[in-house]
Amino acid sequence: MIQFNYTNLFKAKDPQITEEELKDTANLIAKYLENIKAKDQGFYEIVNEDPSGILEYAAQVKGQFDDIVILGIGGSALGNICLRDTLTHPFKASPRLRIIDNVDPYLIEKLDETLNYDRTLFIVISKSGGTPETLAQYMYFKEKTASENFVFITGKEGFLRETGEKENIKTFSVPENVGGRFSVLTAVGLLPAALIGIDIKNLLKGGQEMARKFLSEEFNTNLSFQFAAIQYLLNQKGVNINVMMPYTNRLKTFADWYSQLLAESIGKDGKGITPVSALGTTDQHSQVQLYNEGPRDKMIIFLEVENHESEIKIPDSDVNHEKINFLKNVQFAHLINAEKRATEGAITDYGKANMTFKIDKVNEKNLGGLFMAFEGATAFLGEFFQIDAFNQPGVELGKKLTKKYLEN
Amino acid sequence: MIQFNYTNLFKAKDPQITEEELKDTANLIAKYLENIKAKDQGFYEIVNEDPSGILEYAAQVKGQFDDIVILGIGGSALGNICLRDTLTHPFKASPRLRIIDNVDPYLIEKLDETLNYDRTLFIVISKSGGTPETLAQYMYFKEKTASENFVFITGKEGFLRETGEKENIKTFSVPENVGGRFSVLTAVGLLPAALIGIDIKNLLKGGQEMARKFLSEEFNTNLSFQFAAIQYLLNQKGVNINVMMPYTNRLKTFADWYSQLLAESIGKDGKGITPVSALGTTDQHSQVQLYNEGPRDKMIIFLEVENHESEIKIPDSDVNHEKINFLKNVQFAHLINAEKRATEGAITDYGKANMTFKIDKVNEKNLGGLFMAFEGATAFLGEFFQIDAFNQPGVELGKKLTKKYLEN
Repeated sequence: MIQFNYTNLFKAKDPQITEEELKDTANLIAKYLENIKAKDQGFYEIVNEDPSGILEYAAQVKGQFDDIVILGIGGSALGNICLRDTLTHPFKASPRLRIIDNVDPYLIEKLDETLNYDRTLFIVISKSGGTPETLAQYMYFKEKTASENFVFITGKEGFLRETGEKENIKTFSVPENVGGRFSVLTAVGLLPAALIGIDIKNLLKGGQEMARKFLSEEFNTNLSFQFAAIQYLLNQKGVNINVMMPYTNRLKTFADWYSQLLAESIGKDGKGITPVSALGTTDQHSQVQLYNEGPRDKMIIFLEVENHESEIKIPDSDVNHEKINFLKNVQFAHLINAEKRATEGAITDYGKANMTFKIDKVNEKNLGGLFMAFEGATAFLGEFFQIDAFNQPGVELGKKLTKKYLEN
Repeated sequence: MIQFNYTNLFKAKDPQITEEELKDTANLIAKYLENIKAKDQGFYEIVNEDPSGILEYAAQVKGQFDDIVILGIGGSALGNICLRDTLTHPFKASPRLRIIDNVDPYLIEKLDETLNYDRTLFIVISKSGGTPETLAQYMYFKEKTASENFVFITGKEGFLRETGEKENIKTFSVPENVGGRFSVLTAVGLLPAALIGIDIKNLLKGGQEMARKFLSEEFNTNLSFQFAAIQYLLNQKGVNINVMMPYTNRLKTFADWYSQLLAESIGKDGKGITPVSALGTTDQHSQVQLYNEGPRDKMIIFLEVENHESEIKIPDSDVNHEKINFLKNVQFAHLINAEKRATEGAITDYGKANMTFKIDKVNEKNLGGLFMAFEGATAFLGEFFQIDAFNQPGVELGKKLTKKYLEN
């Protein structure tokens, strides 16, 4: 269950959006959906694909590896980081999933030092099959281990596809009409997830349910459209920063995943909203000072978990002290949610725009739903801004310059 | 060695600052230093304190613990996260340092499941001694283990100080005139650092050298002042976002440390600059699209490492493919620095404000220097904005509401 509550927006001051303004956008849904469908993007359809090939592979290699290492960057890494952090044990996962999303020599050297290559599976992910950082990593590690210890996830052509065929390396496909940053619910996210014990069927189910809402012309149930409309209206009134603040460590990297999706999809033609990741309660002790008393340039998007599925509490105690007494016998789940309510209350009192996505529990179904809700919102946001949310022309110059500097 | 190069700023378009404008600020240094000194803040003096008490304790407990767990939040956690990530092994550190900076029940429960309490040291950090999140954690874990397995780091009074005395718990002090977010070079950062094998004498030495520059009235050597002046001038021209982008995984959490310092110090009275953490090369595949082609609302602060102290390279290979050929025989250190240069070139070509802090190596001395440089810059920034950089009135309302919600 995913709920979206944005009534605090109407209490914000300068900028404020009114309920009427927001509801007035509803007449755009049908047109925008039509435009999006015309772009032939598959992100909302792929959740209907049958994951049995992935599940079979995962079953087949189960128990063979202590470490799974993803070589990938950007959209090939951030969804996997989020899946791992949200749905597996933070201190002792088995197998471990390591995501090497940089060409930092120190990182690669230290990883090399610690791996048992016989018990390590490398998953090389690049939709184009030609991402230089990823290929550099692949070239390095392919000298260290057998080709049976590699799996590729890539598009229908390119270096990885060709090499996979030549060297008989198991290769999974990223559909052509799904961009890297929208690919978490394809093999890109599903294969690593299945290998570390995440229930990918439920992940897809959550995605399917949300895709139906995304495709509906009904404002009241279309969370993606609502969220896009709010972001657009606030941006038109001068809000250029979008802070996502989950109140659970498990969704910390969901905010990072959304950051890349928003930044790369919408940041073009001089337009864009800059994403910021925060974490409750942690950032109450730093960023919230800025959110409350700083400039009126940001919207805060809280993520709240209704049921943390934990009953641990702060023990009762003989200690009698004003700093302790109000905490005695309080469940941590109650404390963290009370702090969310308090921060939300304070931010609202300061007149700052804020809203909340609330999920009943942290699980596969809700995470799949959140991925889809935010991908859908990004597609709608492209329509509001009248830009192509699915390209990234602004990263080409840096790529060209890198090649030039290396060749000279 | 820390160098600061900001010449790209003068090539930026709309907003641009000129060399003359920047140099004109130099006449403010003396006055601003006088104001800062009058505030009796100790952050630039504490680096001269003798760390032998900390070193003795670290020597005394050496080998006794597999896990060191910090219970602390905000300024009591972020410096330690940075110290660990910058200066210890990313995959197999011994002892492990875990920093529990939230009251997430899931996080606490999972930690509880994995610890061997006989081999775990808890360091409870709160300057006020009364941070509710930290005390909640302390109350929970004190039921699990002996008081010998606790150390406190706190101010001269408050709950932790009293409890430390009552229960005979080893207690280190945070100087009264050093705020939490400026405390990384006090026992707050030094004690955990010493316990995980970081050379704290060199950390302090780097801090001392930079403190001398911070206290000098000479514009050309005062990096802190230069950086503050640039941030202020750009902000006056409409730049409200400050992106820090290290080109090394090791300094990723340095950007997070600076985020809290900047946000909480300067975000008040309707003023402030919103910090964003990025990572090169990783975020070239997402955020850089926005930085290049999005709105002219941000400055990019690169952190560059001259010598990565690694000679690993992409192997030569028989593979003949245009995607691979230009990478053959290239050192990863050369690749990551070429990508930095390329991204910097592209951002400059797009006319966006950017600058670079370059260090020769990632080591204690440079990290100590960076901490001090950015603390000093924050103090100067407070002067430019004419606000008190050392208080945080905007976090009080949330604290009050939390207490209210828990008591009702």
